Amino acid sequence: MSFAPSLYLVTDTAQCGDRGVPAVVRAAVAGGVDAVQVRAKHGSDRDRLALVVAVRDVLAGTGVPLLVNDAVDVALIAGVDGVHLGQSDLPAEDVRRIAPDLLIGLSVSGVEQARRVDPAVVDHLGVGPVRDTATKPDAAAALGADGVRAVVAASPVPCVAIGGIHPDNLDSLRDTGITGFCVVSEICGAADPERAARELLASWRRA
Amino acid sequence: MSFAPSLYLVTDTAQCGDRGVPAVVRAAVAGGVDAVQVRAKHGSDRDRLALVVAVRDVLAGTGVPLLVNDAVDVALIAGVDGVHLGQSDLPAEDVRRIAPDLLIGLSVSGVEQARRVDPAVVDHLGVGPVRDTATKPDAAAALGADGVRAVVAASPVPCVAIGGIHPDNLDSLRDTGITGFCVVSEICGAADPERAARELLASWRRA
Repeated sequence: MSFAPSLYLVTDTAQCGDRGVPAVVRAAVAGGVDAVQVRAKHGSDRDRLALVVAVRDVLAGTGVPLLVNDAVDVALIAGVDGVHLGQSDLPAEDVRRIAPDLLIGLSVSGVEQARRVDPAVVDHLGVGPVRDTATKPDAAAALGADGVRAVVAASPVPCVAIGGIHPDNLDSLRDTGITGFCVVSEICGAADPERAARELLASWRRA
Repeated sequence: MSFAPSLYLVTDTAQCGDRGVPAVVRAAVAGGVDAVQVRAKHGSDRDRLALVVAVRDVLAGTGVPLLVNDAVDVALIAGVDGVHLGQSDLPAEDVRRIAPDLLIGLSVSGVEQARRVDPAVVDHLGVGPVRDTATKPDAAAALGADGVRAVVAASPVPCVAIGGIHPDNLDSLRDTGITGFCVVSEICGAADPERAARELLASWRRA
């Protein structure tokens, strides 16, 4: 399965608030989000599975792929499309062995990490952070657009940009070679997630 | 695979201290431990996998089965014998679906939970806590020996007791129907884990 989304939503349960993650995902997809990753660091594994299943059910029939952050067992049980791994998560080559059919995304924050990627194992990269962001205070140093471009050039697989992406810096990412970009706060924290998604996508396509 | 250990060690990384978990496991097995569960709630998934692999290598050739607490993906990747699930971990029936060959242990703290166990899914139960324990401050109310006996009677699969087990209350567990018992602190916190294991086992067999 190829994976080249334009607007990739990564969920933040706290930011979705009382609306709940599934409702925000539904609205975001109506606004044009074309890939979703459930990221749920807190709570029990059982709660995490329930959340992933609820989002999976919202996405059923939409054709929008669903990935799960970190929890390969949850992804396998829920029967979603893929997992997204960080550099301190389970090694991608090990995950590929137990999950031959899952899309595997990997976070990279520099050229060396991108060069080491085996395209037989990893399907796509999340490259970032583009700018410093409050969502992930432990993230690596911001790459900027030039840094993103260098990582994409070094990558053997398609890349999306992530981290600190706003309508006002989308233009700078245009010619970096990314297929699209991830957002968290810009949609999960928006009063109107559908509208936020539509505006982000319009900005991206306009430039 | 049947699973009916006498002395089942559950690891606590902090209590093992500078000796490291693998060295404590090696000593404990020399003292008679006949099943090991790696429980590692902190740290990254990658660290957890490295710990499980190190313990697996210590146990290679000993015939002592190794289970992993919670992390089914880690268990599958490391190729260990089983997983141990709590009531808020992934549901056992879902885990059985993605891991047909793993031993599955489940924690239960009362008769109703034991009655609901499907022996086609779950291989054995950890019944407890026997007494209140500092290792798991969020545990359910202590069962005492009578409570353990009632849970074992309600269970369709073999049971081990866990939680607050010391040499001085082993006798009371004798006729509860358990195959054996789990310890954490009594071995991981012991100055001489091999001797601690040997003495626990001698107490258990003596009575």
